[in-house]
Amino acid sequence: MKLGCCYYPEHWPEEMWAEDARRMAEMGLSLVRIGEFAWSRIEPEPGQLHWEWLDRAIETLSDAGLKIILGTPTATPPKWLVDTMPNMVAIDEQGKPRGFGSRRHYCFSHGGYRQECRRIATAMAKRYGTHPAVTAWQTDNEFGCHDTVLSFSEAAAARFRIWLHARYGTPDALNRAWGNVFWSMEYRSFDEVDPPNLTVTEANPAHWLDYRRFASDEVVSFNREQVDIIRQHSPDRDITHNFMGFFTEFDHHDVGRDLDIATWDSYPLGFLEQFWFGDANKRDYMRQGHPDIAAFHHDLYRGCSGGRWGVMEQQPGPVNWARFNPAPLPGMVALWTMEAFAHGAEFTSYFRWRQAPFAQEQMHAGLLRPDSEEAEAADEVRIAARKIAELGPQQMAQAPVALVFSYEAAWVCGIQPQGASFRYLELVYEWYSALRRLGLDVDIVSAGASLDGYKIVLAPTLPIISDEFVEELRELDCPVLIGPRSGSKTPSFTIPDDLAPGGLRAFLPLTVSRVESIRDGCTHRGDGFEITRWLEHIESELEPEIALECGRGIVFANNNYRYCAGWPDGSLLTSLIEQMGSEAGIETMRLPKGLRIRRTATHQFVFNYGLEPVQFAGTGDTIAPASFVVTPLTT
Amino acid sequence: MKLGCCYYPEHWPEEMWAEDARRMAEMGLSLVRIGEFAWSRIEPEPGQLHWEWLDRAIETLSDAGLKIILGTPTATPPKWLVDTMPNMVAIDEQGKPRGFGSRRHYCFSHGGYRQECRRIATAMAKRYGTHPAVTAWQTDNEFGCHDTVLSFSEAAAARFRIWLHARYGTPDALNRAWGNVFWSMEYRSFDEVDPPNLTVTEANPAHWLDYRRFASDEVVSFNREQVDIIRQHSPDRDITHNFMGFFTEFDHHDVGRDLDIATWDSYPLGFLEQFWFGDANKRDYMRQGHPDIAAFHHDLYRGCSGGRWGVMEQQPGPVNWARFNPAPLPGMVALWTMEAFAHGAEFTSYFRWRQAPFAQEQMHAGLLRPDSEEAEAADEVRIAARKIAELGPQQMAQAPVALVFSYEAAWVCGIQPQGASFRYLELVYEWYSALRRLGLDVDIVSAGASLDGYKIVLAPTLPIISDEFVEELRELDCPVLIGPRSGSKTPSFTIPDDLAPGGLRAFLPLTVSRVESIRDGCTHRGDGFEITRWLEHIESELEPEIALECGRGIVFANNNYRYCAGWPDGSLLTSLIEQMGSEAGIETMRLPKGLRIRRTATHQFVFNYGLEPVQFAGTGDTIAPASFVVTPLTT
Amino acid sequence: MKLGCCYYPEHWPEEMWAEDARRMAEMGLSLVRIGEFAWSRIEPEPGQLHWEWLDRAIETLSDAGLKIILGTPTATPPKWLVDTMPNMVAIDEQGKPRGFGSRRHYCFSHGGYRQECRRIATAMAKRYGTHPAVTAWQTDNEFGCHDTVLSFSEAAAARFRIWLHARYGTPDALNRAWGNVFWSMEYRSFDEVDPPNLTVTEANPAHWLDYRRFASDEVVSFNREQVDIIRQHSPDRDITHNFMGFFTEFDHHDVGRDLDIATWDSYPLGFLEQFWFGDANKRDYMRQGHPDIAAFHHDLYRGCSGGRWGVMEQQPGPVNWARFNPAPLPGMVALWTMEAFAHGAEFTSYFRWRQAPFAQEQMHAGLLRPDSEEAEAADEVRIAARKIAELGPQQMAQAPVALVFSYEAAWVCGIQPQGASFRYLELVYEWYSALRRLGLDVDIVSAGASLDGYKIVLAPTLPIISDEFVEELRELDCPVLIGPRSGSKTPSFTIPDDLAPGGLRAFLPLTVSRVESIRDGCTHRGDGFEITRWLEHIESELEPEIALECGRGIVFANNNYRYCAGWPDGSLLTSLIEQMGSEAGIETMRLPKGLRIRRTATHQFVFNYGLEPVQFAGTGDTIAPASFVVTPLTT
Ligand SMILES: [Zn+2]
Ligand SMILES: [Zn+2]
Ligand SMILES: [Zn+2]
Repeated sequence: MKLGCCYYPEHWPEEMWAEDARRMAEMGLSLVRIGEFAWSRIEPEPGQLHWEWLDRAIETLSDAGLKIILGTPTATPPKWLVDTMPNMVAIDEQGKPRGFGSRRHYCFSHGGYRQECRRIATAMAKRYGTHPAVTAWQTDNEFGCHDTVLSFSEAAAARFRIWLHARYGTPDALNRAWGNVFWSMEYRSFDEVDPPNLTVTEANPAHWLDYRRFASDEVVSFNREQVDIIRQHSPDRDITHNFMGFFTEFDHHDVGRDLDIATWDSYPLGFLEQFWFGDANKRDYMRQGHPDIAAFHHDLYRGCSGGRWGVMEQQPGPVNWARFNPAPLPGMVALWTMEAFAHGAEFTSYFRWRQAPFAQEQMHAGLLRPDSEEAEAADEVRIAARKIAELGPQQMAQAPVALVFSYEAAWVCGIQPQGASFRYLELVYEWYSALRRLGLDVDIVSAGASLDGYKIVLAPTLPIISDEFVEELRELDCPVLIGPRSGSKTPSFTIPDDLAPGGLRAFLPLTVSRVESIRDGCTHRGDGFEITRWLEHIESELEPEIALECGRGIVFANNNYRYCAGWPDGSLLTSLIEQMGSEAGIETMRLPKGLRIRRTATHQFVFNYGLEPVQFAGTGDTIAPASFVVTPLTT
Repeated sequence: MKLGCCYYPEHWPEEMWAEDARRMAEMGLSLVRIGEFAWSRIEPEPGQLHWEWLDRAIETLSDAGLKIILGTPTATPPKWLVDTMPNMVAIDEQGKPRGFGSRRHYCFSHGGYRQECRRIATAMAKRYGTHPAVTAWQTDNEFGCHDTVLSFSEAAAARFRIWLHARYGTPDALNRAWGNVFWSMEYRSFDEVDPPNLTVTEANPAHWLDYRRFASDEVVSFNREQVDIIRQHSPDRDITHNFMGFFTEFDHHDVGRDLDIATWDSYPLGFLEQFWFGDANKRDYMRQGHPDIAAFHHDLYRGCSGGRWGVMEQQPGPVNWARFNPAPLPGMVALWTMEAFAHGAEFTSYFRWRQAPFAQEQMHAGLLRPDSEEAEAADEVRIAARKIAELGPQQMAQAPVALVFSYEAAWVCGIQPQGASFRYLELVYEWYSALRRLGLDVDIVSAGASLDGYKIVLAPTLPIISDEFVEELRELDCPVLIGPRSGSKTPSFTIPDDLAPGGLRAFLPLTVSRVESIRDGCTHRGDGFEITRWLEHIESELEPEIALECGRGIVFANNNYRYCAGWPDGSLLTSLIEQMGSEAGIETMRLPKGLRIRRTATHQFVFNYGLEPVQFAGTGDTIAPASFVVTPLTT
Repeated sequence: MKLGCCYYPEHWPEEMWAEDARRMAEMGLSLVRIGEFAWSRIEPEPGQLHWEWLDRAIETLSDAGLKIILGTPTATPPKWLVDTMPNMVAIDEQGKPRGFGSRRHYCFSHGGYRQECRRIATAMAKRYGTHPAVTAWQTDNEFGCHDTVLSFSEAAAARFRIWLHARYGTPDALNRAWGNVFWSMEYRSFDEVDPPNLTVTEANPAHWLDYRRFASDEVVSFNREQVDIIRQHSPDRDITHNFMGFFTEFDHHDVGRDLDIATWDSYPLGFLEQFWFGDANKRDYMRQGHPDIAAFHHDLYRGCSGGRWGVMEQQPGPVNWARFNPAPLPGMVALWTMEAFAHGAEFTSYFRWRQAPFAQEQMHAGLLRPDSEEAEAADEVRIAARKIAELGPQQMAQAPVALVFSYEAAWVCGIQPQGASFRYLELVYEWYSALRRLGLDVDIVSAGASLDGYKIVLAPTLPIISDEFVEELRELDCPVLIGPRSGSKTPSFTIPDDLAPGGLRAFLPLTVSRVESIRDGCTHRGDGFEITRWLEHIESELEPEIALECGRGIVFANNNYRYCAGWPDGSLLTSLIEQMGSEAGIETMRLPKGLRIRRTATHQFVFNYGLEPVQFAGTGDTIAPASFVVTPLTT
């Protein structure tokens, strides 16, 4: 795994560049990402392209032996460009324009802006496409950041109508698919269809789902335009995009297919603070991040672009954007780096080389402080670099467990939670975490990816399932666990004629006759476990494998398939996974709090995210807090 | 009492209609409501009225012996209609149009839309007005649902000015009435007056109150236009509208006067979850609803249209629109049905016949599942139908207790809570609940209804009281309890010259010299009770009947009148009601938790909303949870 | 100290004026503020000025011996005026106009409205400027109330561009100062700069800070226009403006410099309820206000206009605008009055004479009830008047302690809290309160005021410090305590080249190498104290004077200077202040809960804000709740 950093030569006096480059190399870095916010320096006046400074920056970095990931600057169009077409900005759900003054002030559907992006990407790719130091490209930056996937602009409405026309052919077909007869919502023409915002009460969920699909497709095609240009002018370079954490607003599998390598931006402390991890986790892991946050995304993004992935931005210290921004525990930057390595990252790039003393992210730490002194992370980078060199390249082995992830499922649950606490990402994360607490390696795969070779397959929920994927599941002979709401919707966001689980009935002979959502604080008790948030009533000739105290069945098994008819707690998940593990012949172990394992083809990595030293029974090692141990695997 | 259901023939293939109708009749239903969302099928293109399908639907239902309640489709104008006059939609308080894509996308004040409503209502009334199976009409659907009473459109502003002109005659009179001199808010012409939204800080409360009165009057006149048309073309049919629960945005007494029979939509579980019932109630009654929710509305709406009322929509299973949507406890659908019967409903109609598999309410249960199998409620409907037939029609007796309810009071308290926890509906509900926990039957009457024959009269609060109603109260010789803030405002939302309780001083010789609101969690203690939320300082020569520990009087009695100078807790209410009961010679009994009684002229119904079996001392019966017992009254 | 009241002759029939005036004088009042909301009566039609009624009101009041503070009516322009230039209203951050119907419906930057204000102020000043009874003027009313300092109108944008041009000269200078290269936010012309609202994510903090400075300057110049007019036409009268509590949206020191005397509006109960004082304080001091609220503002505003100050509005009973509005404990109105006296107020004016029975503030108590009977406060006013007369005029002595307050610091912390709980006002208030609990008198001074003669100096935080103020601090030889984040920003909202504490390194030889914010509920423990919210990592050759349990230094001392590298709790503050007191030779004493002391040059006042009688060790007096004791100081 290579190490790198994100660098902004335009932020610093040119005199500093050479020394910066030298210090990067000295620190063990060999990659540097540049360019993605530099449009106003590349083109300070309309049409006047100033490459000279970037030429020199690339030379300087290259001279120090660094390889360059070059970003297209399309996330930050300059003011003069916005002023030439003010309606290029996105319109928020309340109908307000999202203007200039920060970043991502554009609508993915705006034709004029797309043309500008093609123009600047072409110019950049032509100029640097064959530069020997430029080994990779990043398109734009963090698609969707700051809630920018959905736009309710005129441009988006117009392209949505075209998208609907292509999907449905006739307004009647659309009306039937959506059930628009329901409240006299029928259209006589695609021209009558608007985006689903600003309705009196909720719009048709089918309307929303298609709008989300459309918006996701807009991201895909926006990205593909740049990919096509770069491929043409910069042969044999990797193309990537830096995805974000806990973000499902567009289909990353779809974007990922157009890339050579998926990357993501890893901020474990910020994510812990911003997401649903209750107070206890936020206290116990305040300076480490919850132990599954980084690994979850590593395993998710490894499945997005054919197995190749990396960390484009790695948190090196306190950030500026969470509600509270503590410092990582000493050791965590090295631990996070090694964890990426263990999960198969091709590189880890720290964000950022030097903390900027100005503008929005001035409180975001870097490897250097604003005064160019080394920040705390610098020495941890050196430690990691040495350890990585010592261990040598790691081959990934297929994980024993496949966890099925679907962006469409996230949209369906978000559009129609039915119970306020039914959150897709949280459900999947809990299932993932249960697997990892049992010491299992996991591949997170798309609904449609090959499941060949897996020993256990889990799908926390898949409301909409294609016939093809049902078929793929049906051919498995390993233990398979399917979660609630799976098969509960058709692709048109309607209830299947034969009710849930729809097509899954091929191997799960049962019917979900009724569902109920459960208010926070209320539970349905079973023997040693509880069901919260969601409970389904099942009609089946199957005897329940596991039932609630009241007698209602909660887990139903049929051959190698199991169905869980509610939101399981960690205890039920653990016993189900242990049972499946024993059926599949794979070993599980209940790891002490804070400990996680990851195996490559040749080594076992054990990470301690906890605040106390922990003995790992597997090797007898005692592992210090915020630390890790690597041992060769004996086969 | 008849049973019925809400049915949408336009949602289902025509081949299913006859079988549906047959099954309705078989289940014990004799009524069916149709049509209220079908505009886009009745008039798919402007001016092209397609009655054929509705003709056939009515014939098919009629052939099965069902009687029809026909709804005007004005709650869901089609897209083409909205596109002909885009400014027909309401404007929300923030100034944003509330567009097409769900329902109720219209402004009550828009002249063009009113004309369209008259046109479609006339066409419908002419076509079906004398059909023998059509025995009743419903105007529109759930006026005000989704916060649609208030609109801040140009159309509303224009009609508001006319309304003000009619009320005040001259701008000077308006300025004086509102006290506009206060902050130089004086108008020189009615044309200068705008709706009270979008002001820098709160607008004049008098401005808001008149805007609320105006908006309520707009609902009244909108409804009346349809009533007049239907009366003309459909003689001898009942006209109703389906009101909602816990909803006070317009004056239901005013609308009710134009109807033959008031109906309401009863969703006990959704209402429990959505309203102010704390966590303990929401847990204990999660699957039953709080025991007074249904009865409160039964007794309220019985007072809206001369005593005639029904349930137009009865929850038959989990709904889709509350934060959490649990399933009713087995037995609750029958219990709710019988409770409507005991309170004098002419019919109970379940919403809906079959769960729709598509669009916004696809997760809302029906009597049938989407796959046409019977849902859990079906058998409970049969049980209720048999029990109702067995008991025969029930005559209502006048209740011993009258509880005075005022929509205007709700507006006054909402406009000027003065303490954040002073909520009108909650106050009235608590008083109602205290009465019912003591086994008393209650009529909820308007401020102005006759109070003849009542043994006890309670008015939880009446900030504005007409001279006529003061006179009516003054002539009573039964125990009367008046709550805080009564008489505290003139009709112009000013403080009376002689302070509160204003005109009530005719029989309550006291003055409210000062009021204070009390923060949540703080109380003023008395002997065995607490005052929360609101406390008044009273000047009077009367000795307090009940005082706080600190000596301040809280209940003042004068002859048969009592005044409560604060927000009483259940304990104080209970002892006051017991005292009044004993004075009036009516028996009270402290019912066990979850038990409620309702008497018709001939029978006593006891309902157990609790989770445990309870013995009812009155009859010795042990009543199972979610169950009821009926016994003939011995006189 | 004089007593007075706020009176609105235009609200009452002219027949009542003489009797009102007589009763004011009888009650001990000698001042009356009038006029500030009367524009629609002064000029009911455009250009038609009706002074007659105001002439008569002034004569009537004057005849009773009252002196008059005359307010310009510019906070409430009449409807006809707004209609002549509808774009004179402010635009809120979301882009919505803030319309007519309450008050303060204007944008400080609107040239047309400014001209109207000059016109009406000139006419008023000419007419009454030399009237012998008119002894003082108030400009406008409560600048900024209802969040009205910031406006995002076209008018504001245009003047902001001019302001920027004046500050930076060239767009390049602005780009460099703000670091606009960061996200390609560079401007080619000042015309390209917009206000910082409606950006996709946060705007540049430098952009916000300059917008806040600009908006503050707009208030200053708006006020100055009226001041200049009044000075011209009304020589030798005091000019004031009534500031508010806990309000930092514009720089009061800047406005104060143009006034003769600063006044503020004191609502201790409303402020307690509306601000950050947790549940325990809100319960214990519900009817008294937290014991430092009034004193804090007295001491703050005494520092705003050269030492002269007063209370323009004093709460006399329950108000109408807080979430909950309890009544003051008997005695509190007298106590608050005496506290203002003890802190050096020139007058205290109660808001208002008589409670208005109409419009927005009808639930706001006055000295009289709406029925003209005396309210509870009236007798307390008499008690205070007598006591003040008995004690005679009080000379203020310089306090031993200076606490440095900066509006710019409040803006910086608000723009970039970095931790959600870092609130400037709360920090300063906690430091102030710690001083007062130790019995110390405090002068709250601006960053730039002279510090000569103080025995102790504290600066809770000063993110931006001028070189001049650093120099002033450097010349002190008394104990100085500097709080966290001081010196952490340049005037352009960037991090200093040499990091925090920037220029303070002149006497604090240390470097803040890293900062972290701490989530609510988490702490860093020391010996008998805790650090919450904020923690800095310090590099220094100094040994920490106080360290955390983990060894990290938290207080660093160098000669007479101390730096606190975190958010201290009350316990740490107390011991630091005691230590500084002992070094400075000033006595501190740990006062019982609820007790506070204030000394004038000749007297010691002890106030008991608590609910229980407390013995004051200093004099042996037992002081009743809501009461005070005054004793001559023995020197
Ligand atoms: Zn981002
Ligand atoms: Zn509704
Ligand atoms: Zn104010």
